[in-house]
Amino acid sequence: MGLSRELNIDTGKLRHGSLNLISDVNGIKVGHSTITSDDIQTGVTAIIPHGESIFEKKLLAATHVINGFGKSIGLMQINELGTLETPIILTNTLSVGTAASALVEYMLEQNPSIGETTGTVNPVVCECNDMKLNNIRSLSIKNSNVFEAIENSKKVFDEGSVGAGRGMRCHGLKGGIGSSSRVFEIGDNEYTLGTLVLTNHGRYEDLVINGQNLPEKYPYHNLNEPDKGSVIVIIATDVPLNERQLIRISKRAVVGLCKTGSFVSNGSGELVISFSTANTIPHETKEIIDIKRISDDLIDIVFQAVSESVYESVLSSLFNSETVTGRNGYTCHAIVDILTKNF
Amino acid sequence: MGLSRELNIDTGKLRHGSLNLISDVNGIKVGHSTITSDDIQTGVTAIIPHGESIFEKKLLAATHVINGFGKSIGLMQINELGTLETPIILTNTLSVGTAASALVEYMLEQNPSIGETTGTVNPVVCECNDMKLNNIRSLSIKNSNVFEAIENSKKVFDEGSVGAGRGMRCHGLKGGIGSSSRVFEIGDNEYTLGTLVLTNHGRYEDLVINGQNLPEKYPYHNLNEPDKGSVIVIIATDVPLNERQLIRISKRAVVGLCKTGSFVSNGSGELVISFSTANTIPHETKEIIDIKRISDDLIDIVFQAVSESVYESVLSSLFNSETVTGRNGYTCHAIVDILTKNF
Amino acid sequence: MGLSRELNIDTGKLRHGSLNLISDVNGIKVGHSTITSDDIQTGVTAIIPHGESIFEKKLLAATHVINGFGKSIGLMQINELGTLETPIILTNTLSVGTAASALVEYMLEQNPSIGETTGTVNPVVCECNDMKLNNIRSLSIKNSNVFEAIENSKKVFDEGSVGAGRGMRCHGLKGGIGSSSRVFEIGDNEYTLGTLVLTNHGRYEDLVINGQNLPEKYPYHNLNEPDKGSVIVIIATDVPLNERQLIRISKRAVVGLCKTGSFVSNGSGELVISFSTANTIPHETKEIIDIKRISDDLIDIVFQAVSESVYESVLSSLFNSETVTGRNGYTCHAIVDILTKNF
Amino acid sequence: MGLSRELNIDTGKLRHGSLNLISDVNGIKVGHSTITSDDIQTGVTAIIPHGESIFEKKLLAATHVINGFGKSIGLMQINELGTLETPIILTNTLSVGTAASALVEYMLEQNPSIGETTGTVNPVVCECNDMKLNNIRSLSIKNSNVFEAIENSKKVFDEGSVGAGRGMRCHGLKGGIGSSSRVFEIGDNEYTLGTLVLTNHGRYEDLVINGQNLPEKYPYHNLNEPDKGSVIVIIATDVPLNERQLIRISKRAVVGLCKTGSFVSNGSGELVISFSTANTIPHETKEIIDIKRISDDLIDIVFQAVSESVYESVLSSLFNSETVTGRNGYTCHAIVDILTKNF
Repeated sequence: MGLSRELNIDTGKLRHGSLNLISDVNGIKVGHSTITSDDIQTGVTAIIPHGESIFEKKLLAATHVINGFGKSIGLMQINELGTLETPIILTNTLSVGTAASALVEYMLEQNPSIGETTGTVNPVVCECNDMKLNNIRSLSIKNSNVFEAIENSKKVFDEGSVGAGRGMRCHGLKGGIGSSSRVFEIGDNEYTLGTLVLTNHGRYEDLVINGQNLPEKYPYHNLNEPDKGSVIVIIATDVPLNERQLIRISKRAVVGLCKTGSFVSNGSGELVISFSTANTIPHETKEIIDIKRISDDLIDIVFQAVSESVYESVLSSLFNSETVTGRNGYTCHAIVDILTKNF
Repeated sequence: MGLSRELNIDTGKLRHGSLNLISDVNGIKVGHSTITSDDIQTGVTAIIPHGESIFEKKLLAATHVINGFGKSIGLMQINELGTLETPIILTNTLSVGTAASALVEYMLEQNPSIGETTGTVNPVVCECNDMKLNNIRSLSIKNSNVFEAIENSKKVFDEGSVGAGRGMRCHGLKGGIGSSSRVFEIGDNEYTLGTLVLTNHGRYEDLVINGQNLPEKYPYHNLNEPDKGSVIVIIATDVPLNERQLIRISKRAVVGLCKTGSFVSNGSGELVISFSTANTIPHETKEIIDIKRISDDLIDIVFQAVSESVYESVLSSLFNSETVTGRNGYTCHAIVDILTKNF
Repeated sequence: MGLSRELNIDTGKLRHGSLNLISDVNGIKVGHSTITSDDIQTGVTAIIPHGESIFEKKLLAATHVINGFGKSIGLMQINELGTLETPIILTNTLSVGTAASALVEYMLEQNPSIGETTGTVNPVVCECNDMKLNNIRSLSIKNSNVFEAIENSKKVFDEGSVGAGRGMRCHGLKGGIGSSSRVFEIGDNEYTLGTLVLTNHGRYEDLVINGQNLPEKYPYHNLNEPDKGSVIVIIATDVPLNERQLIRISKRAVVGLCKTGSFVSNGSGELVISFSTANTIPHETKEIIDIKRISDDLIDIVFQAVSESVYESVLSSLFNSETVTGRNGYTCHAIVDILTKNF
Repeated sequence: MGLSRELNIDTGKLRHGSLNLISDVNGIKVGHSTITSDDIQTGVTAIIPHGESIFEKKLLAATHVINGFGKSIGLMQINELGTLETPIILTNTLSVGTAASALVEYMLEQNPSIGETTGTVNPVVCECNDMKLNNIRSLSIKNSNVFEAIENSKKVFDEGSVGAGRGMRCHGLKGGIGSSSRVFEIGDNEYTLGTLVLTNHGRYEDLVINGQNLPEKYPYHNLNEPDKGSVIVIIATDVPLNERQLIRISKRAVVGLCKTGSFVSNGSGELVISFSTANTIPHETKEIIDIKRISDDLIDIVFQAVSESVYESVLSSLFNSETVTGRNGYTCHAIVDILTKNF
């Protein structure tokens, strides 16, 4: 986000974490597998929720669908049981099945008891449609890409045109993976909240940065191109929130998304998954589970952190992307090339 | 909205209707009953959906709860049956019961068959909490205020500190009733969408107009005051939308709300009710009902109209309000007095 | 339920509590106010959730709408915040406004801080339509009936044609208030779950008891009468369940309702509110709240308890009702009069 | 269902269609691919919604989650857009990813425009967990099984231990695929509603047929075995219902499920998808779409048809199943073998 810092973009009032990434939340790692070859510009991104077995030590989680024009898998069980029990995989829209299948394979390998002495596992896979830059009909994502993304996961990870973000477009410019974080106090305790977005939404004509409409200053193209994209938002925090409260913070992601001028269009499947690392839910049956959560009266600062961090994540996906040429020779420009008229 | 026009505030790209009010949608009327007396600063606003019997000719309708920290009545049946069958009443939070009771009384008078030869009626009442300016413990709203608001309804109506808006605060300033509209084409047809808001949400420190944070230029007060308010959004349109599509457009109201800097705080009960005048659903049983609706592919311009009109409605609630002194001598300033440093 | 016991009705496998009432859950009390006078056959029932201030010590709660063809108030905030902060009031459909208003008045009296130094209060009122026996147009319920029901509340309370149940009909017979309870173990702990129903649903032709269709043996009337009713189910338990789990158990109420042959008809507004007394949520802000809840793996016996107790509550509403003659001279017979051919 | 007819089981009052299968609804076909080999007892079932291109002529559809402890894919977009645009695939729980991937491949082949000149496609796959009889860790379902199930589809299809039903258990007995239909009038028009279930739910100790608890008469086994299963219900009809009304009828499936004694246990992921063939929604953009739907006042008979047809479908899945021996040599008996003590 070097350039955006130089541009002195106001991304809010709360301070960010040391990496300004979702991985500022302790234990979280992110990995990519990127495919780039002419018409194939796509990939996989994996978010690892914590350092131990997520199947044995599940995390409280929630989902929120802003616009359900999408194909994700795994939300229903999160809603019902309030827990996340696998890494979260992001990929292109027609590869959700393959990614889910690969994630199941990975979980079976990690957990020999699944399907043997214990029940099943709920793979969580989200998607955006990268067909403008990527030939989605080629079904290029293979199981190995999912395994690779998981294996590649680390605390300091790349943003922009990588992993699932390889072929994505945001506000008519090159989008993809963006991440940010916020650190704040509730009472005497310091907490961290981080977000990761896969941006594939918005029209260039609506793009607003620092309260200024970009196309006015930087006339580019596509001014009447409809928004056919979507955006995935992952929120992680160490604030002790329960599943109901996680729904509440998930609903505030849209506030951050709106700050770049999106109006959450028809084709734009907007989806939020959030989880808290503050409590773990054991896979094995326990008569009484003790949960800590904050009072709802204190949740406003978490809402604010979501709003700011999601906004900065979207910017980060733009400012970390590079110009990419893909399917049918279409070139999608990076915002840095637009700003420097380098195209 | 004279001043806001002078300020050259960018409220979007679509043109507004002739009145720039929700009543630009044909048939809609709005009326107020205002109580202003020392500690009592409250009232009732009624939205009449069309010119005929709304009980006999129901309209397709939908609701969307952004933040359910509120006490409204009537949403459940709208969700189940997809129809609106009464005027919509807005008032203060502790008066919902009284307003519902009065609305039932009004509907019984208008419809002698209810409870006699046909079933019941579903009163729709929404609220915000005006306790900062109004002594809500006094329960000052009486049935007569509801009748008066309905009787007062007209096409050209007042905005600002009137009716249910009398005691409301928005971004720490005087809020209340605001309204706006947009006119646009889908294919060969011209359509109108109008919105009315009851604004009681947001913090002064977050207020953004024209992409600029107001408190920086106009330091006022309350900079650390928590947001304890809420906002009601009513959307009306003559675009043929069905109940599912009305849910979709309702979800875009938040986009407009965010433009003034709100992050939809904990205490801020945000609620949207939308209805379309394009189809009527007869109260009497009909074997087959013919419904017209647009293709979802064409809905983006309606989303945009919602976003713009809600944003301008919030501004209109601010710019049409006057400074009010109420409970315990508290004075809430109008934005025009802030901008002219007239306080 | 004397007669039903004699009839040897199988109401399930779990044992009931000492009273076989919802008040077997410690702290719960129920009170009625009944109006019976020719065309006016209606009333109010109040459920007091625990012995202390429910506003200061809220309970985790949840709602589930099976069929939203109804007019209840207060559900939205329960859904958002997961808490119950008032008694639950049941009454007839057009009196919800009055009952909400009276409940607000009661809460203001009990809690001088509401609207003064703290925020508002969320009144919870549910309803069924008793218009076949009661002249609902008369709006006969007054605030005093709500106060009386609350004051009358006690651990051992009447069932049948009392309170809100006065004018209700169930399966074409006299219905009203019914209650039951179940006691069971989870691990080493014994728990109680109780239910209270306000029955106003179902057709006579569908009525099944002990797996046998009643109309075949006891031809009565109304065989083609449509179902125009509804049913309210209140579930209370001391099992430590959180708000998500309370939604889950609420969804099982329908299992018990189906056992008498209901198919949850169009006009039948089915609504469930459930709460757990195991945790209390302080009204005043607390940084960290400790919550105890069971593992979802252990919840099946709670589901079973809901199913059995709701079923027995419906039967209890039938078997405790007496024949009532009301509006336009219509007589609705008690099941005991049908079974003894005493009509 | 020969034996069940002999047993004179009361499955309701409405008459069934000529086949008593979901395919009595015009245009619907069902196909299976079954894998049976020692530890592998699983398969795929495909429901083809109509005889033309379902992608070009989508059907109005809705989903209802009774218990979300499941891994299905495709529901979110049905909820958002109200349309079904692919066949519905049923399979075992860990093969959802593979089945989704295969279904995408099939749709790409059928529709060369997807991902080329038009957008993506929303594959719909539902699942139950057949791990008691099937080694789900083997991930035995391949793309070819999905293609085969689609190709095998026909109007007269097998029920019981076939396709996705091969390894399923219902009430501790052999379950699987079951189907039924009802024919009824609304006004002057005759309509058909059909249902297909994949049964994998319930405990033997709860099984009730004809109002009689089976285990009492036929003591078998597993009396304290927990319910770890789930059930998928597909509802099809030619009644003109819109997406909201389809949600309403979907909610009545549970009534039919309860009639065999299920209490919708924790592990039992219950999911309903329903669609109407009465209107088609063109894939290509159309300014105004004309929709026919019935009045909600007339929907009760559709609710009744759902209840009856789902109940009979569950019975049909039991009575059409054969005893199967699978993983670890476990044998699951068919109900016909229990009733004839043939085990």
